[in-house]
Amino acid sequence: MPRAVREQQMLDAAVRTFGQRGYMAASMDEIAELAGVSKPLVYLYLNSKEDLFTACIRREAAALTEAVRAGVRPGLSADGQLWSGLRAFFTHTARHPDAWAVLHLQARTHGEPFAAEVAAMREEIVAFVTQLIAAAAREAHRDPDLPEHEVAGLAEALVGAAESLADWAGATEGVTAKQAAATLMNFAWAGLGNLMADLPWTAPEEDAEGDAERDAEGERHAGPAAVPAAAPEAAVEPVAAAAPQAG
Amino acid sequence: MPRAVREQQMLDAAVRTFGQRGYMAASMDEIAELAGVSKPLVYLYLNSKEDLFTACIRREAAALTEAVRAGVRPGLSADGQLWSGLRAFFTHTARHPDAWAVLHLQARTHGEPFAAEVAAMREEIVAFVTQLIAAAAREAHRDPDLPEHEVAGLAEALVGAAESLADWAGATEGVTAKQAAATLMNFAWAGLGNLMADLPWTAPEEDAEGDAERDAEGERHAGPAAVPAAAPEAAVEPVAAAAPQAG
Repeated sequence: MPRAVREQQMLDAAVRTFGQRGYMAASMDEIAELAGVSKPLVYLYLNSKEDLFTACIRREAAALTEAVRAGVRPGLSADGQLWSGLRAFFTHTARHPDAWAVLHLQARTHGEPFAAEVAAMREEIVAFVTQLIAAAAREAHRDPDLPEHEVAGLAEALVGAAESLADWAGATEGVTAKQAAATLMNFAWAGLGNLMADLPWTAPEEDAEGDAERDAEGERHAGPAAVPAAAPEAAVEPVAAAAPQAG
Repeated sequence: MPRAVREQQMLDAAVRTFGQRGYMAASMDEIAELAGVSKPLVYLYLNSKEDLFTACIRREAAALTEAVRAGVRPGLSADGQLWSGLRAFFTHTARHPDAWAVLHLQARTHGEPFAAEVAAMREEIVAFVTQLIAAAAREAHRDPDLPEHEVAGLAEALVGAAESLADWAGATEGVTAKQAAATLMNFAWAGLGNLMADLPWTAPEEDAEGDAERDAEGERHAGPAAVPAAAPEAAVEPVAAAAPQAG
């Protein structure tokens, strides 16, 4: 059997073992047995438990990123692209729960260099979602009015929501990939959609009373509102690139 | 100086050191020096580095949960409550970046028992947000139509988005707590708001073509749509409690 094939079998066994037992509790004996090879062969090919775990993270990060990219159909409208991308994401994580556990739990739970590997994948996905949202803004002719920082924040919110929902869907009886994607679209798109249509959420009137007190507590003011609001007095400033940093 | 006061000083120093240096790299010498006490006194009071870290997680988890609960003003409309809660969350995390690093990064990065401590806090916050969304549904007279699973999913999405944005706001020049909260409200509320108004996002027509292929790839079908949709043919089923589990 060629080395490349054997290595993939070892990685398959390792992802399953790391995902189900956790990095610390996983034993090289178990991984070798599950892969149907001798333990010395695992060490010969993958060098160490650390290197094996790193190889698992890299392979699964690439597979997830590729699944999402391949799932997005470029000809669609912006919400169609997001929907197809989210379905691909939730389908992939539902179908590969051990890989998702490795990426989202194990890789972040055992320090460096593993956390840096998965952070790089996350940055790539955030950048991809940022492009999607920016494209949606252009499609809605919002381009000059939606500052770069606001788009970046929306992408971070969407990715965080997707990660959280993937964990939840995996742990909850009766939630399919399609349903998780639909829940997130219900949550996110109508929100993003309204934003694209120049209809941002506006702070309720009752809030004004508490503003001075809260602002005095250490928050800084943004510049003039960058997104025109439906009700100017109650409107909330979105992120403005020129504002100073909080805290 | 009373023991309780000294202990809080040690915890202040420990949160700062763990948050900035990371759990592994933080030294008990540095913590003792920063607290202005001898190292043996830190061990006498807090027992070990592990116990000290656990005490930090517990104190900061309680402080964050309390800040969010106290920030939500019960008399307000549902979006007013969410807005006040989010502002309290982002204000607290911006003002206590070391505590947030301990809770959201360090506690999850160094295995058990730390991860379990912070998971308990997260569950409490998700439960709280679930109540808020359920209350919003009742306020909008959506109660019988919004299944429990859908509400739980929306709460997970919102909490995941907030966590992600708190990390991003802390790492991004020019983003205040108020702006991060506004970005999340723009993203989330108009989405939740539309859902409450019986206007869920609907899948684009172009998507129908890919459905059969995707469903054949392992997704399961939900039961009949539980949330009435604006355009029934294109509508997406939200989470239905009776559907079988994916993957």
